[in-house]
Amino acid sequence: MTITADLPVSPAQRRSAELERQLAADPGRFRVLTGDRPTGALHLGHYFGTLQNRVRLQDLGVDVFVLVADYQVLTDRDVAERLTEHVEGLLLDYLAVGIDPARATVFNHSAVPALNQLMLPFLSLVSVAELGRNPTVKDEIAHSRQAAVSGLMYTYPVHQAADILFCKGNVVPVGQDQLPHLEITRTVARRFNERYGAVFPEPDALLSAAPLLLGTDATKMSKSRGNAIALGADADETARLIKGATTDAERHITYEPERRPGVAGLVLLAALCLDRDPSELAEEIGNGGASGLKLTVTDAVNTRMAPIRARRAEYARDMGYVRGVLRAGNERANAVAEATLREVREAMGMFR
Amino acid sequence: MTITADLPVSPAQRRSAELERQLAADPGRFRVLTGDRPTGALHLGHYFGTLQNRVRLQDLGVDVFVLVADYQVLTDRDVAERLTEHVEGLLLDYLAVGIDPARATVFNHSAVPALNQLMLPFLSLVSVAELGRNPTVKDEIAHSRQAAVSGLMYTYPVHQAADILFCKGNVVPVGQDQLPHLEITRTVARRFNERYGAVFPEPDALLSAAPLLLGTDATKMSKSRGNAIALGADADETARLIKGATTDAERHITYEPERRPGVAGLVLLAALCLDRDPSELAEEIGNGGASGLKLTVTDAVNTRMAPIRARRAEYARDMGYVRGVLRAGNERANAVAEATLREVREAMGMFR
Repeated sequence: MTITADLPVSPAQRRSAELERQLAADPGRFRVLTGDRPTGALHLGHYFGTLQNRVRLQDLGVDVFVLVADYQVLTDRDVAERLTEHVEGLLLDYLAVGIDPARATVFNHSAVPALNQLMLPFLSLVSVAELGRNPTVKDEIAHSRQAAVSGLMYTYPVHQAADILFCKGNVVPVGQDQLPHLEITRTVARRFNERYGAVFPEPDALLSAAPLLLGTDATKMSKSRGNAIALGADADETARLIKGATTDAERHITYEPERRPGVAGLVLLAALCLDRDPSELAEEIGNGGASGLKLTVTDAVNTRMAPIRARRAEYARDMGYVRGVLRAGNERANAVAEATLREVREAMGMFR
Repeated sequence: MTITADLPVSPAQRRSAELERQLAADPGRFRVLTGDRPTGALHLGHYFGTLQNRVRLQDLGVDVFVLVADYQVLTDRDVAERLTEHVEGLLLDYLAVGIDPARATVFNHSAVPALNQLMLPFLSLVSVAELGRNPTVKDEIAHSRQAAVSGLMYTYPVHQAADILFCKGNVVPVGQDQLPHLEITRTVARRFNERYGAVFPEPDALLSAAPLLLGTDATKMSKSRGNAIALGADADETARLIKGATTDAERHITYEPERRPGVAGLVLLAALCLDRDPSELAEEIGNGGASGLKLTVTDAVNTRMAPIRARRAEYARDMGYVRGVLRAGNERANAVAEATLREVREAMGMFR
């Protein structure tokens, strides 16, 4: 595929490529921390952007920790609405796409108190100036639903440091925009180790190779914009959503993301589902026009998602099992967090 | 005594006086949260400033929680040095002055994970602007030992809110300078209750009536200035420290805090130890001069402290018991914190 081949390669991308080689060569050395905030249904953007990659890493033999960041829902909104529904939805999505609870650890933030015990020492390692100039926080503040910047938003990178370091995660899959966050985690780890002795790894970024998926309105596919096709959507809903998607007046279908974002977004979605090159696929559709394109996309999405949706529906009939997956993950996460906290307290000379 | 009688009465002082009446009338309605950071030995300034008052409240029948704020040592310094020694010292001081573990709860911050679980929701209730304009934090930043303001210092008032509200403390003994901190705790409680339902009290300030005690260098008695007489000091050390105290060249002893801080500080110390009026005491010493004053002070301190020091030495011979006091207090604090956290999670609709 040529989707990203024309982008220049940054130092972070080079490091990430080297990390990929190490992961493949010796997966047992690595623990990945990744996760989602339970603010709504996961969608195709998540599937191609991150979920597939988590399953790939898990299947490589890497130890994958998946965080349901329930407390952090409050980072950019006042109240965590329908939290139980959203958490259960995430669990179903994870299981449906192939996260295997026998190998990966799915846990929720608020169920692991020892994780948050790291917050106080970690906050002491970062200056207010460093928090204030974090570009990702600045950007998230700009997109926040809240009138004022909360203390939670401001200290978000430190919470992430605790999320990652409690389990000594040494690989974090991120988008380019999340690199400054991870830099604070690396700073916290380095300063802790310098001050108290070597406890934490400095986690490396595994940059996402996935292209940005657009929603049905030709802007970034997003939970909050109502332009997403949820993993859990059925075939009819998928057809309806794609039918209503933004295209343009040109009949001939091409793959020109800059000039024709709506059409190109749909082509890309179909290409991802079919594991094909988007330019070739566009050429094939050619004079089929928007309606031909939409039929191709609908069919591609529904075919690709069918087994995932079937598994999702199956798990949804056994929520006792699904909740049990989280319970077991929380047990493992708590054991890991408590072991790390003991090391931290020992290193810091805390009273025992 | 006329020590504070000439000060104007502020609204906060009026509320505090009313609170005193309620405490005396119905002590069972109140829970006090108070505590110290384990950064060094407690001294006579602490004794007359806060410790005596805690014992008084305990003896009134108020439920007193005493926090050993171990994590918060890092608020204004990089490393918590000699933490075990300082924590054990605090425990000995508490027991020596009459904190009764059968009635009061002594616990250390880092041993109560459910307390810190409140940090994340609480941080979401306070804006960065509110944290930034807190005058007490500004002042503490000015006196910090650190080059940069840490995230821990900046969020300190929110940590205090968690310290106070985890046990639903509704009375907090404070000095005038701590009122802005307590205001943030009240804000957090009020906003939480408004957003999620009534869980927390809005704690009231019990303003200290104790006069400021000066150290042997005629500046505020302080752990970090080397000008303090520790509770655990023996009679000889006390004599030596008072002998070296700053006075002035006037032979006749008077109680004039503004004009003669060194002499007045010593007079006040003796007056507090003897439960006497400082002006009358100064008059009595009269032409005894600095040496007469210092003999009076030494004798007064050593007499007043003798039973406390004897108890302290006795407890120091049984550190197993002393550590057991903290263990039992931590158990109680954890039970209380977990009950509050359950209520909080229920109110917030967190996933269970």
